Amino acid sequence: MLHEQHQQLLQTLHECMAACNHCFDACLKEDHVQMMTECIRLDRECADICNYLEQAISRGTPFISELAAVCAKICEACGNECKKHDHDHCQKCAEACFKCAEACKNVA
Amino acid sequence: MLHEQHQQLLQTLHECMAACNHCFDACLKEDHVQMMTECIRLDRECADICNYLEQAISRGTPFISELAAVCAKICEACGNECKKHDHDHCQKCAEACFKCAEACKNVA
Amino acid sequence: MLHEQHQQLLQTLHECMAACNHCFDACLKEDHVQMMTECIRLDRECADICNYLEQAISRGTPFISELAAVCAKICEACGNECKKHDHDHCQKCAEACFKCAEACKNVA
Amino acid sequence: MLHEQHQQLLQTLHECMAACNHCFDACLKEDHVQMMTECIRLDRECADICNYLEQAISRGTPFISELAAVCAKICEACGNECKKHDHDHCQKCAEACFKCAEACKNVA
Repeated sequence: MLHEQHQQLLQTLHECMAACNHCFDACLKEDHVQMMTECIRLDRECADICNYLEQAISRGTPFISELAAVCAKICEACGNECKKHDHDHCQKCAEACFKCAEACKNVA
Repeated sequence: MLHEQHQQLLQTLHECMAACNHCFDACLKEDHVQMMTECIRLDRECADICNYLEQAISRGTPFISELAAVCAKICEACGNECKKHDHDHCQKCAEACFKCAEACKNVA
Repeated sequence: MLHEQHQQLLQTLHECMAACNHCFDACLKEDHVQMMTECIRLDRECADICNYLEQAISRGTPFISELAAVCAKICEACGNECKKHDHDHCQKCAEACFKCAEACKNVA
Repeated sequence: MLHEQHQQLLQTLHECMAACNHCFDACLKEDHVQMMTECIRLDRECADICNYLEQAISRGTPFISELAAVCAKICEACGNECKKHDHDHCQKCAEACFKCAEACKNVA
């Protein structure tokens, strides 16, 4: 992985984690939480793996492609769930997830 | 910290993490999720710090007392929220949290 | 995954994490650290992914098979490095890693 | 915490994690690893807690001040160790650690 690609991936992972955690938090404040439970679950899964990969890359893990492949899959699942909901935080989260899934696939 | 105390704390932290994550999962399946949002939030906070401390202890962190003090505080907050709810998973989680808070205070 | 298999995997992951962290710590105390640097690196990688998967399983992650596949790969790499070294902590760590790699492959 | 302060802390935590992980990696490649073992240990401790706090803040944890107080302590310990060594990665890591310790104290 080139140094520039590396920096960009770290940024993308961070943004995805932040979007997922914001969505997690915002979903729990919605009037109809009942409809958001799958979103809440996947937001946590996605934030956690992005956070994990962010650190793993920064320590020079030799398993970046394997981890990025899993991360891409989780980002996609989270993005697919989020895009079903009209809330602004869900739509923004979906966008961040799909962008991150692409970035992860490029290094996987 | 004596070796035996160490082993027992690792076990208690693991049980608390498992109880919090089970409660997180079960709360999201309840009919009245709306009433469980604070519980869901704190379950995640508590599971994460217990998981973190479990690993930190097992690598011989020099910061065990500082981390255990924070962990005790988070366990207590989660236990106090969980005990408000009648669900079996909440009551069991509260019990695990209070037990873990005590164990953490003993090494803090 | 059956409940019993689940409990056993959690135990195996915990033991692998503990063995890797013990090996990490012990390697840093060896007279010839220079020869242990790859072991130190992989111990950290392996402890981290086992710790991650332990929590992910306990919260009912829908991505257990994908995460377990990556974990198996990292456990194998760590076990292969550890078994090259005669230190007791390395040999024990290799054993824990290979056992964990098998357990992960069974759910992957 | 004001939104701007929040964004800046996230950035500072990320930079400290990156510096610690870079130092961890670089120390393991040094000719005299034997002299770097305490640095390697503390780099891992510090990277982990910064990474943890980064995510905890982004999900709106109610325990930011308690976690930031521990993080400040770990950053300081890591900075104090790193500044003893002349390697460029150690000096830069010390700088990142002290900056992060200050930022954490401001929210603790």
